Amino acid sequence: MTITITAFENSPDGGKGLARDTRVRWALEEAGQPYEVRLLSFRAMKEPAHLGLHPFGQIPTYEEGELALFESGAIVFHIAERHAGLLPHDPDARARAITWMFAAINTVEPPILELVTVKFIEGDKPWAAERMPLVVERIRTRLRQLSARLGDADWLDGAFSAGDLMMVSVLLRLKPSGILGEFPSLAAYVARGEARPAYQRAYAAQAAVAAGHRAA
Amino acid sequence: MTITITAFENSPDGGKGLARDTRVRWALEEAGQPYEVRLLSFRAMKEPAHLGLHPFGQIPTYEEGELALFESGAIVFHIAERHAGLLPHDPDARARAITWMFAAINTVEPPILELVTVKFIEGDKPWAAERMPLVVERIRTRLRQLSARLGDADWLDGAFSAGDLMMVSVLLRLKPSGILGEFPSLAAYVARGEARPAYQRAYAAQAAVAAGHRAA
Repeated sequence: MTITITAFENSPDGGKGLARDTRVRWALEEAGQPYEVRLLSFRAMKEPAHLGLHPFGQIPTYEEGELALFESGAIVFHIAERHAGLLPHDPDARARAITWMFAAINTVEPPILELVTVKFIEGDKPWAAERMPLVVERIRTRLRQLSARLGDADWLDGAFSAGDLMMVSVLLRLKPSGILGEFPSLAAYVARGEARPAYQRAYAAQAAVAAGHRAA
Repeated sequence: MTITITAFENSPDGGKGLARDTRVRWALEEAGQPYEVRLLSFRAMKEPAHLGLHPFGQIPTYEEGELALFESGAIVFHIAERHAGLLPHDPDARARAITWMFAAINTVEPPILELVTVKFIEGDKPWAAERMPLVVERIRTRLRQLSARLGDADWLDGAFSAGDLMMVSVLLRLKPSGILGEFPSLAAYVARGEARPAYQRAYAAQAAVAAGHRAA
């Protein structure tokens, strides 16, 4: 059955791989699964046809036959459950890899997304400059803890897993801010993720959409 | 094998069921699994022994024989995968229930947690009062979308699932603010969750800890 995902027609990041379809593309590439992409305008994302697929009017979605899913974490997990390469076979190791998926999006990503709020959504507010260091310090706390756990390992728990895929994707958002560079072992961890051929293919595919949009 | 979870010795919410151990207790009660609880002081949560279990120094954790997990979402999923009652058997329905787990913690909870930031963590800042309506409006956007999807159904996708357990748990945080009351169908949805005998037992167990702490 054909897998179809949705992505921004015109991604707010201009093709830097930070939109959440990149996580799903990466998982599909790790799993060796071909997929098709349906591009959506911001207007189309809020229309009933798309809201039927994604109640919060976002991307990505995932369609495969009768099955329709949303939420990048859930989609990555779905791919990881059905194909080899993203979750260990050992039940305990598998549960720990899933734990890292949840930790990435529920513990590490929320303070990082606050950076978007303070810089862009509330960038014109009088408190933005004074609030920024508070937000950055909350991110540093998480990165210190994550760095301590990672130690000198290549990946968070044994071999590369969907937990690393999600954690690297979340940390990638920090690259433009320079905060990631304060934690060399995490910067190297992210670089290992970016160096994976599957990530490279996913990145190139989303960058091609942005390039096509600019040329149009 | 005995299941042991961790919880606050002295929960910041005074036993209102908002600490994340309640989600895990609820899942264990739905699954009919007995469990033990190790209570932790704020100081103990940041010590090496606990950081070995939970790299971010939080509660809850979950121990069962050799297996140690953290992140309430991951723990609830682990329980749901191993015991009947929290995930449908049909593979597509199961994938959709998991999608709602991720939607609860990654799309609905982050704006709700901002309420904690603006009210408490940054409550003494000069911008708190002016920032509050922005935060509240972001929450309302999510609740409008969630309410539209729920419609007049009892649960988000067919029978009660771990997706509902997580979504109800996330929405419960809004009760003190009054925002939930603006969305009667969501308030009724949360009330249905609270009325489940398994939730009642989980709530009572965490409330007893708080009462014991006050008496001590």
